[in-house]
Amino acid sequence: MPPSPIRKLAPFAEQAKSKGIKVYHLNIGQPDIPTPRIGMEAVRHNSLTVVEYSHSMGIESLRKRLAQYYRERNIDVDHNRIMITNGGSEAISMTMMACLNHYEDVIVPEPFYANYYGFSTVAGVGLKPLKSAIENDFALPPVEELEVMINAATRAIMICNPNNPTGYLYSRAELEKLAEIAVKHDLFLISDEVYREFCYDGHKHYSIMEISGLEKHAVLIDSMSKRFSACGIRVGALVTRNRELMDTVLKFAQARLSPPTFGQILAEAALDSPPEYFKAVYDEYIERRNTLVNGLNRIPGVYSPMPKGAFYTMARLPVDDADKFAQWMLSDFQYNNQTVMLAPGSGFYSTPGLGKNEVRMAYVINKTDIEHAVECLARALEIYPGRTMK
Amino acid sequence: MPPSPIRKLAPFAEQAKSKGIKVYHLNIGQPDIPTPRIGMEAVRHNSLTVVEYSHSMGIESLRKRLAQYYRERNIDVDHNRIMITNGGSEAISMTMMACLNHYEDVIVPEPFYANYYGFSTVAGVGLKPLKSAIENDFALPPVEELEVMINAATRAIMICNPNNPTGYLYSRAELEKLAEIAVKHDLFLISDEVYREFCYDGHKHYSIMEISGLEKHAVLIDSMSKRFSACGIRVGALVTRNRELMDTVLKFAQARLSPPTFGQILAEAALDSPPEYFKAVYDEYIERRNTLVNGLNRIPGVYSPMPKGAFYTMARLPVDDADKFAQWMLSDFQYNNQTVMLAPGSGFYSTPGLGKNEVRMAYVINKTDIEHAVECLARALEIYPGRTMK
Repeated sequence: MPPSPIRKLAPFAEQAKSKGIKVYHLNIGQPDIPTPRIGMEAVRHNSLTVVEYSHSMGIESLRKRLAQYYRERNIDVDHNRIMITNGGSEAISMTMMACLNHYEDVIVPEPFYANYYGFSTVAGVGLKPLKSAIENDFALPPVEELEVMINAATRAIMICNPNNPTGYLYSRAELEKLAEIAVKHDLFLISDEVYREFCYDGHKHYSIMEISGLEKHAVLIDSMSKRFSACGIRVGALVTRNRELMDTVLKFAQARLSPPTFGQILAEAALDSPPEYFKAVYDEYIERRNTLVNGLNRIPGVYSPMPKGAFYTMARLPVDDADKFAQWMLSDFQYNNQTVMLAPGSGFYSTPGLGKNEVRMAYVINKTDIEHAVECLARALEIYPGRTMK
Repeated sequence: MPPSPIRKLAPFAEQAKSKGIKVYHLNIGQPDIPTPRIGMEAVRHNSLTVVEYSHSMGIESLRKRLAQYYRERNIDVDHNRIMITNGGSEAISMTMMACLNHYEDVIVPEPFYANYYGFSTVAGVGLKPLKSAIENDFALPPVEELEVMINAATRAIMICNPNNPTGYLYSRAELEKLAEIAVKHDLFLISDEVYREFCYDGHKHYSIMEISGLEKHAVLIDSMSKRFSACGIRVGALVTRNRELMDTVLKFAQARLSPPTFGQILAEAALDSPPEYFKAVYDEYIERRNTLVNGLNRIPGVYSPMPKGAFYTMARLPVDDADKFAQWMLSDFQYNNQTVMLAPGSGFYSTPGLGKNEVRMAYVINKTDIEHAVECLARALEIYPGRTMK
């Protein structure tokens, strides 16, 4: 695995901080929202004497509670078709290992979540990028472009919906087209829906699990990390109605014994969080998104689509090279003793040269900090030597 | 991965239980010892508001505390050479992926922990078994037998010390010979020491990390699961002084983001458990071991070495096929409405045909239950149709 652009930036961020410069981290997806109290209390009041292995598939009561959560969202799935994993990360790894043989390929719209790379390397499979472009606000390209990519080595299509890094929310029509292709070519359709609760402006999330006829093909990746601002509990899920696939996944799960007990206890309780919790989170994110994206689009030469979901946006900057610009902001720039750390776009593309003038930003910090960060960015773009717009 | 013999037995155990038969589980390593109170209290009194990702290498204060634990055991290692993992399981997976390329081999004394199979499959590497025999109480065979197995594809030697499934504790002389071979042939020497605190009869544990000259070669696998009877916290460690290797491991670690927060909080506190905790655990296990092993050796035709470490023993039974016998005990036998579940030896060997009349037993249940279990086993062996001794 090549080092990601973010990892290369880390020492420069440390250096800036050591000089007393305040660094606004728009580069990472660690929310500052409190974890639901009901979940924290369940951990604090646990009555365990021995913290035993849980079942390799996860604690049954959690799986049943999660099945109920899905039923309330129009996804009818038995709790034995749900595998609890060490975060969404393990769900992705296990899915790739169980669905694909070595040297087979999965088609993924790019830009995509940078860690998909690492998981595919571990699984020994190839990622074939299907280009989505900022010019179209990262909508899927016409189905024909996808279909010509399919060959004998292709075993799966994987999407992230809503999307990290773009914030794109797939339409029902797009998903139904993907489903049709999956069935036609007998491919797995893997949908990473860890941001499913973060959809804005009245847009409704539509899951591949709601599409009929995909029993053999659909695999849902889920996680409690972002939903409950509880990234450290390491609780995700792999959901599929394909019994044979689940049997294979179970073998991988048994080898690693079990997911973490306390995280499962927190997740099960947090699923009972009151609607006010999610309403408050929603209101907070909407305001942050609007602050960030409207602020970006007011900067000359900058363009960001308005994301319909998740808490990221991929923006185009008037710079020669976003990798260089992001480093320069940490090593050579400060405004009122502040600067911004960005995730260079190149880390989210596998096609060489793409994303060179794009950056991903996460709006998981508070509104005031976002305002300061946008102001910093505007100033930086005015004086950056590699600016491409006069 | 083929289904393990234990997994094949599970439905028969369920069936026996549904008939009201009490099943003594000698087949699994889930201890009933209480998790240290000091660890449980740290989780209960945590003051977190947001359960964030921890550092991919694990919480720094835990790594520093663990480095101190090692120093107290004659292993001088910096906390930045310690990677906290999702249980010992992930430490093994990461080690195999980082040390070996696809299709390269690791030599492992057999019988070995059955899940090594699964991890090697995921890593795409081969396990080459080095036979150790019950006739020699599972001591390592002469070094010459090991050396002839080494070829161009060999990249590592891996041991489990003390051993699961045999309870064998490697001598200092054996370890020094292994170290010599590792250096001579430039192989990694991987030592799974998750049972390091369980050594009996005055025998001292000797770690490969205490051997000088192995800086590039030694990898220590550790886990808090058994040490603190906290299998569900999923906290293990990978320790190596090889900086380049740790850099590679870090890439895998970053892809899966972080180990679980609450488990790390528990582990850090539990490392301060008072000596009385370990003394009580030790006394309990010694008594269980003696009850089991002395009981087994009183049954005609049964032989078990006296394990010097861990909490397992591998015993030879006077039966035609331990797989069949283990199933028969669940499906066709009961004594006073009780029976025993055993782990057939075949699951711990990769050489076909080996372990056919052996079983692994874990002494993690209380002494009275062990006595009942041994009595059941004695009765079963008297009437089992496939008995090989008149």
